[in-house]
Amino acid sequence: MGAALALAARGRGRTAPNPNVGCMLVNGSRVVGRGWTQPGGRPHAEAMALAEAGAAARGAIAYVTLEPCAHVSPRGPACASSLIDAGIARAVIAITDPDRRTNGKGIEALQAAGIDVTTGVGEADARRTIAGFLRRQAWGRPQVTLKLATSLDGCIALASGESRWITGPEARAHAHLERARHEAILVGRGTLEADSPRLDVRLPGLEDRAPRRILLSTRAAEDWTTIAAPEDIATLDGVDHLLVEGGAQTAAAFLRADLVDRLLLYRAPVLLGGKPGLADLGLTSLDAAHGRWRLLDTRMLGSDRLEVYERART
Amino acid sequence: MGAALALAARGRGRTAPNPNVGCMLVNGSRVVGRGWTQPGGRPHAEAMALAEAGAAARGAIAYVTLEPCAHVSPRGPACASSLIDAGIARAVIAITDPDRRTNGKGIEALQAAGIDVTTGVGEADARRTIAGFLRRQAWGRPQVTLKLATSLDGCIALASGESRWITGPEARAHAHLERARHEAILVGRGTLEADSPRLDVRLPGLEDRAPRRILLSTRAAEDWTTIAAPEDIATLDGVDHLLVEGGAQTAAAFLRADLVDRLLLYRAPVLLGGKPGLADLGLTSLDAAHGRWRLLDTRMLGSDRLEVYERART
Repeated sequence: MGAALALAARGRGRTAPNPNVGCMLVNGSRVVGRGWTQPGGRPHAEAMALAEAGAAARGAIAYVTLEPCAHVSPRGPACASSLIDAGIARAVIAITDPDRRTNGKGIEALQAAGIDVTTGVGEADARRTIAGFLRRQAWGRPQVTLKLATSLDGCIALASGESRWITGPEARAHAHLERARHEAILVGRGTLEADSPRLDVRLPGLEDRAPRRILLSTRAAEDWTTIAAPEDIATLDGVDHLLVEGGAQTAAAFLRADLVDRLLLYRAPVLLGGKPGLADLGLTSLDAAHGRWRLLDTRMLGSDRLEVYERART
Repeated sequence: MGAALALAARGRGRTAPNPNVGCMLVNGSRVVGRGWTQPGGRPHAEAMALAEAGAAARGAIAYVTLEPCAHVSPRGPACASSLIDAGIARAVIAITDPDRRTNGKGIEALQAAGIDVTTGVGEADARRTIAGFLRRQAWGRPQVTLKLATSLDGCIALASGESRWITGPEARAHAHLERARHEAILVGRGTLEADSPRLDVRLPGLEDRAPRRILLSTRAAEDWTTIAAPEDIATLDGVDHLLVEGGAQTAAAFLRADLVDRLLLYRAPVLLGGKPGLADLGLTSLDAAHGRWRLLDTRMLGSDRLEVYERART
């Protein structure tokens, strides 16, 4: 399932409105098929893995990160049917599909065909991997990641405005990889005017990943999709993962609206005493600040540290 | 030597103007004596270890974190002579004593008595353990540690001023332990008036550790030693380790004067968008901020993270 989850992660940011799923087909001790949801949402992970396995799918175990779909679409057959037709012996599934067209029907179909089904394996990681799809299904909006690249004292620039660079090349490369995992990137008017950010993915081999550019502003700007308030992210079709990159006012607006699900904090070992990374959050007590964030991962990137937090209350 | 360094650390903050030294006497496979500089500076670590070892010191190896002193004082004999008289076979020494009354003479005396001497073992850690003594010897001022307890975004209070508590009980207990390792604690006028801090050591068994209370201010205050500028720390007799606790103006004043040698950053997993932990440092370029701090240690304290940095340029 770990390998299937790694495959699922490959599609993150490029499959909306479809979920990014991973599938491994294992026959005896041999991996016979690997698949992940392709850009645009098709083929599905199971279809890709079955195509690779061919006749070797017969009697195999299918590890799938999300319940196989049960609904026939003009773009292809239901994956549950395809797995049955291929003759798999067993299915191991991380989570059931909340999409009401499936929602248990895929599992029922497999079981009715005599296939042994196990669910819940790797569930927590699978939920994180398709957080964008689940957020859209349950909350009607994209999964929002807020990125902050700061000094040890939480600043994003000197008092003069100078901000290039606080973090080092390793941290900046990682931040570009994160961009490739999001359908869209959002900045505020201040960042647009101060930095004219390109918001592209400057990594070898990933230059073609161009997330949509969203502007939080009450005035439109050429080449930018503009929304007037954080709540308007619900209207962004085809965006299941949104990366909020700056600046301090925009970050605070999303936090005040309780619309941040994940934090990426890149911190460089410098002290600046400059411009804070967050504008006023309007908190009236410290109690209200505690218990909101859970540390998920931390690592060094060169001499900088990355910390990843996720929403503690879901 | 690791054990001797741990013994040396016990005296930190209570031996000024003497260095806090550790000594282990090992005879064959048996530890026969352990000593560390006692509060006030006497007895020395070697004297304590020799008293414990008695006749078992004959033929032993002495592990000492600092070169044994070579000068007789009214308060006791020179440790080099005591080790020779006790008949030790070998001495392993981390660093030589920069005090001009010793500075190699202790090692010479041992060698002249036919004792095998090895130096430089555990040198980097030994320098950190007696950083206060070395700083006073070389720079004529105490070792300065700046403590900051902040949110993830570097704030020390809400906009309303509320600051209790950002970090949790484990981090606060650790900060109290750090107080016990310093001869004096300094705050600024703003912190004095806002918080009336007690600056005591609220840990079971350590309540008697009461570091001197220093105020950075142009006006005197009752029960406080007052200095007008960060540079005046050089005048604080009997203070080899100074802990700077707040607030943002005071921290910035010490950083601007390049008088901070060590950073203790306690960070709680909260976002505040409130009062920054550091006032303006007056930096004119980011280049000037980089390369100053080296990460020495990091650990979790409950749900908070402690990071310890040290001056990278010495």
